[in-house]
Amino acid sequence: MNAEIISVGSELLLGQIANTNAQFLSKQLAELGINVYYHTVVGDNSSRLEEAIKISQSRSDLIIFTGGLGPTKDDLTKETIARVLGKKLVIDSDALRSIEDFFKKTQRHMTENNKKQALVLEGSEVLRNDHGMAPGMGLKVEDITYMLFPGPPKELNPMFTTYGASFLLKEIGEVERIESRVLRFFGIGESQLETEIEDLIDNQSNPTIAPLANDGEVTLRLTAKHRSTEVAKRLLDDTEALIVARVGEFLYGYGSTTLVDELMEKLTSAQLTIGSAESLTGGLFTEGLTKLSGASAVVKGGIVCYTNESKEQVLQINKATLETEGAVSESTAAELASNVRKLLNTDIGISFTGVAGPSESEGKPVGTVYIGISYLDQPTKVFSLRLAGTRQGIRIRTVKYGCHYLLKILNEQNS
Amino acid sequence: MNAEIISVGSELLLGQIANTNAQFLSKQLAELGINVYYHTVVGDNSSRLEEAIKISQSRSDLIIFTGGLGPTKDDLTKETIARVLGKKLVIDSDALRSIEDFFKKTQRHMTENNKKQALVLEGSEVLRNDHGMAPGMGLKVEDITYMLFPGPPKELNPMFTTYGASFLLKEIGEVERIESRVLRFFGIGESQLETEIEDLIDNQSNPTIAPLANDGEVTLRLTAKHRSTEVAKRLLDDTEALIVARVGEFLYGYGSTTLVDELMEKLTSAQLTIGSAESLTGGLFTEGLTKLSGASAVVKGGIVCYTNESKEQVLQINKATLETEGAVSESTAAELASNVRKLLNTDIGISFTGVAGPSESEGKPVGTVYIGISYLDQPTKVFSLRLAGTRQGIRIRTVKYGCHYLLKILNEQNS
Repeated sequence: MNAEIISVGSELLLGQIANTNAQFLSKQLAELGINVYYHTVVGDNSSRLEEAIKISQSRSDLIIFTGGLGPTKDDLTKETIARVLGKKLVIDSDALRSIEDFFKKTQRHMTENNKKQALVLEGSEVLRNDHGMAPGMGLKVEDITYMLFPGPPKELNPMFTTYGASFLLKEIGEVERIESRVLRFFGIGESQLETEIEDLIDNQSNPTIAPLANDGEVTLRLTAKHRSTEVAKRLLDDTEALIVARVGEFLYGYGSTTLVDELMEKLTSAQLTIGSAESLTGGLFTEGLTKLSGASAVVKGGIVCYTNESKEQVLQINKATLETEGAVSESTAAELASNVRKLLNTDIGISFTGVAGPSESEGKPVGTVYIGISYLDQPTKVFSLRLAGTRQGIRIRTVKYGCHYLLKILNEQNS
Repeated sequence: MNAEIISVGSELLLGQIANTNAQFLSKQLAELGINVYYHTVVGDNSSRLEEAIKISQSRSDLIIFTGGLGPTKDDLTKETIARVLGKKLVIDSDALRSIEDFFKKTQRHMTENNKKQALVLEGSEVLRNDHGMAPGMGLKVEDITYMLFPGPPKELNPMFTTYGASFLLKEIGEVERIESRVLRFFGIGESQLETEIEDLIDNQSNPTIAPLANDGEVTLRLTAKHRSTEVAKRLLDDTEALIVARVGEFLYGYGSTTLVDELMEKLTSAQLTIGSAESLTGGLFTEGLTKLSGASAVVKGGIVCYTNESKEQVLQINKATLETEGAVSESTAAELASNVRKLLNTDIGISFTGVAGPSESEGKPVGTVYIGISYLDQPTKVFSLRLAGTRQGIRIRTVKYGCHYLLKILNEQNS
């Protein structure tokens, strides 16, 4: 079953809102094993909507409309579909009653045009609106299934999950279930990752493998289809195993887990406390951890030492080190990490020093980064990086690398 | 000129992301006076994309593509358009150089498939990508203008505003100029602001006045149309004057200026240094300032004192104060502000302590916030707040209030 979502509303074409309805419905349809091949957005214009419907009829066998079911003149989705399908619009008495009840309850005067919302396509199954006035509809005409939903997400979303999904399941009968899994990688580029698993991607069919890159991270979305959920899951497991065998060292998490989430979870379960000394990142690392509730059990504090003066005064960094090797150096990173661990009396001290730009510093080019990690009484480790990109891009990826290296160390301890 | 936006990417059809690119571009095109009649989303599938292009050619004279310009196999927007238009793809040497530079800088190995990103449609004007590798394109073929942009918003948005808009202006020639201006307010609610200028909003025509609320801030977008830019600007000036006469005290900036930008600018021009002691905000304030280039002249550092232990050890907060009044108290806020000013030897010390939630602390309810400001040798001021909302919402608005109060103090000094 090939689906298309037609969203009706000039506010979308003016950019006043994003088309989150199409996103929501696409997710829901994927779960039901229905392929969505097109999203279309058209304004509150009957003739352009009619054109869009005719194009859709030529390529889709499920057409889902959102928006344009309201009481005002520019709500004309129902009317246009009725014309195209040669169907009448008839009053739905239940819908009319609930509209009248609504106005009674809110003690507001019901204007004539509100009755318009109770009109439905003749022969359609009416989908109740438990969070608004305009009902939805589902009907099949000449092998094409049409569904109509109101535009406001707080009406559409529950209407689809409560009534829409079951209407669809009836229409399509037994379907293949779709299981998908997102693998999250860090420390490897998108093209590098794709090269490593090129043959897997080329031969992909079930599951499919879709890479997506963002801020130095790469995700792989695996999607498997099968009548049996168990089998679909097993297909995912098998493909994941093949991928992990090649690039497993860069896999850090699943789904929407971020590196910071992962780090917080590891620190919490290991009951380890952390403190940070941040120069170029200026608090970004600590802010990311303290954003999460439960941070107070793990984060004792952090020092943003943005100047040499503060590095010396607050963190007792050796003046000689700063003068000979500079603030952006392996030695300074090491001292910062171990000194902040002592100052804040934590199990772990992590430091970030480097050049975020826009201009070089100490003769060191933009993107030079040192990350120090002092873990319990073990010798302090320092990692050096050369990053490209904007000032903020460098800061963000520096923090991600910090989480990445610290996670590696924590995992080595446990293994 | 009738525009259509074709977004290419299966992640959109799977509902993994919303089509915010179409929203962004629609807003931008509206500003240029260009009507957008359709949004289309199609997956990473060459034949369906080809169909979509042909439909679009039959109804639009500006077709803007987003996505599918990357290095991987499923990036096929350029290739498909080239086939439909019967154009060759040629290497753009500038693009290739910047891609090679990127890999040199990051000392990463450049895989073959990255070269693909330097291919452009022959005869097209290349739009530079200052935030990524794949360049954009603009070209006109048989009265239809085609524009191609990369999918990642952080690449597309600046590419459109920096290079895309001027390409379009050349294409469309003289039009009614649209001038718009965004006024930014803090410390007044949206509904109160609207009440204050209700009559202006009701009688608006040219300029139009559009209020928008977000994270405790309210913005008013004024948009004026006229053939003459000067006249359009004058219309904006007049309306702004009427608004400022009523709610000017809450106006803090224009355009995309944030409270942090404004604060940084004031501190820089007054040559004042600042240090912070952050408890509930966990580094959010300092991170916001250090995000901006030039921060090192202003920000000496900051202490994230997330535990009582760190408040005592690093900032010498009186144990008695913490025991009798608690960490979330006016006295602690005051001590934190003046002590951090001394510790970091700055002109200004600012402190944030409070309860971000999810649960209450020291018997004080979620949303209790104290902000301390120690300015030179003046007595420390403490501002207390009761904020509602999520943990992160409270943290974000706490920082904004901190900037707001400090800006007030700085402005009083100058006046």
